[in-house]
Amino acid sequence: MDNTQAGNERSIRNLIPLNHPRRDSLLIREKLVEALENNILVPQGLIAHGRGECFDYLIGEKTQDFAENAINAAAATLLLAKYPVISVNGNMAALVAKDIVELSNEVNCKIEINLFYRDEKRVKAIKKALEDAGAKEVLGDDDLTTIPELFSERRKVSKKGIYIADVVLLGLEDGDRTEALVRLNKKVIAIDLNPLSRTSMTASITIVDNITRALPLLVKKVKELRSKDRIELEEIVKNFDNKRNLAEAIKFISRRLEALSEDLIGH
Amino acid sequence: MDNTQAGNERSIRNLIPLNHPRRDSLLIREKLVEALENNILVPQGLIAHGRGECFDYLIGEKTQDFAENAINAAAATLLLAKYPVISVNGNMAALVAKDIVELSNEVNCKIEINLFYRDEKRVKAIKKALEDAGAKEVLGDDDLTTIPELFSERRKVSKKGIYIADVVLLGLEDGDRTEALVRLNKKVIAIDLNPLSRTSMTASITIVDNITRALPLLVKKVKELRSKDRIELEEIVKNFDNKRNLAEAIKFISRRLEALSEDLIGH
Repeated sequence: MDNTQAGNERSIRNLIPLNHPRRDSLLIREKLVEALENNILVPQGLIAHGRGECFDYLIGEKTQDFAENAINAAAATLLLAKYPVISVNGNMAALVAKDIVELSNEVNCKIEINLFYRDEKRVKAIKKALEDAGAKEVLGDDDLTTIPELFSERRKVSKKGIYIADVVLLGLEDGDRTEALVRLNKKVIAIDLNPLSRTSMTASITIVDNITRALPLLVKKVKELRSKDRIELEEIVKNFDNKRNLAEAIKFISRRLEALSEDLIGH
Repeated sequence: MDNTQAGNERSIRNLIPLNHPRRDSLLIREKLVEALENNILVPQGLIAHGRGECFDYLIGEKTQDFAENAINAAAATLLLAKYPVISVNGNMAALVAKDIVELSNEVNCKIEINLFYRDEKRVKAIKKALEDAGAKEVLGDDDLTTIPELFSERRKVSKKGIYIADVVLLGLEDGDRTEALVRLNKKVIAIDLNPLSRTSMTASITIVDNITRALPLLVKKVKELRSKDRIELEEIVKNFDNKRNLAEAIKFISRRLEALSEDLIGH
């Protein structure tokens, strides 16, 4: 972070009262607006973030049990993987660059930039953000090939990364791409606040949680499970049912809304 | 619309298949990104839009009964008003400038620009968008005074507009402002996709619907109710209970989610 950025962040931090109920959420917004100015984000990324914010609000802006369960299965899957890759887009680079680097160190996995609205200026800005956060190797800007079934710029993947990965971790993704990766027999771990999205429904493991909370918890869980042997890890993965877990997430929101509507008319 | 804009819109329209399930939603997004480039929107407006998109998705991207009921009460309230004003922000100017002008002609009400992130360049751009849509008089750029209780730039209101209005129609608003207007004994009609927001809870009448669907329907309803006399209109307003109607909206979403979660695990 350069001095101007640090200055901006300080001033925004000062503007929002420490006890503001939505302080975290407002600080995240400011980070994203800054990322837009730095070419890391495209405007469409802000709209996608807003949609996520709404679902975060509906799950109570907290990591719930269904997310903890998915994080547990995701950690085991990453530890069992032969060649895991973290697929990074603009929103992830803007919000969790440091956590991405930490996770990649913990499970020895690759980091690859993959963008729906791809342009080389953006790829460079995102690469810089990841390197500033400590990444030693960032894929996605050379040695590319294409995967079938994808009609956006997202089909361009690295021959040393997603192309040969057995497990891909992704966040805030579009449904077409998740489906294409699953069709290629890759295990997909998705972090998505919308339990109803095509990505959520298609992924092997869906963590319905805010990525700024989920990624640090995933790093912690990987450290915890490291002592387990292969059979124990496989047991964890086997016991996780993604559809059932998503149904729990949706039911959780539904019950919360039901209670709110009853409060409103004074039952 | 100038030629470049028309050209952009055509090319985007061509890119998104006619039968794409989320075509309308994607076209609206592109309009907003264009409004960002034209200074009509600030980046935060895109995040707010994303949040709305999520709730639109949850109500089935359709005008539901609870919205129809609120539109009915809103039309009667506007016809009964002595001095109604439409408060316009960037998102509204980007999406529904023509409908705003049509409504203001139908009920003979003022149009006033009122912005959270106010700067004169933005006020000008929004004024131009409204004038291009046919507005003859746009308030909010001169003869301003301030209303108490508001700490953002939103407290600046026109002496010929919101300051003396008995009814204010607003969309996509922050809760603080809605509360301040209600405290000043103004009737507030809010168009807000989030039935849980402070604006929704505080407004006199909340239309939980996408503003691009709700505003044309409101114009239609005003035309329909014009033949009614004062007593009939007052009856319509009296029979509308905002809290109960919001509870219906929340229950609708809750039941939809419950059904979806059951589908998922095959009940």
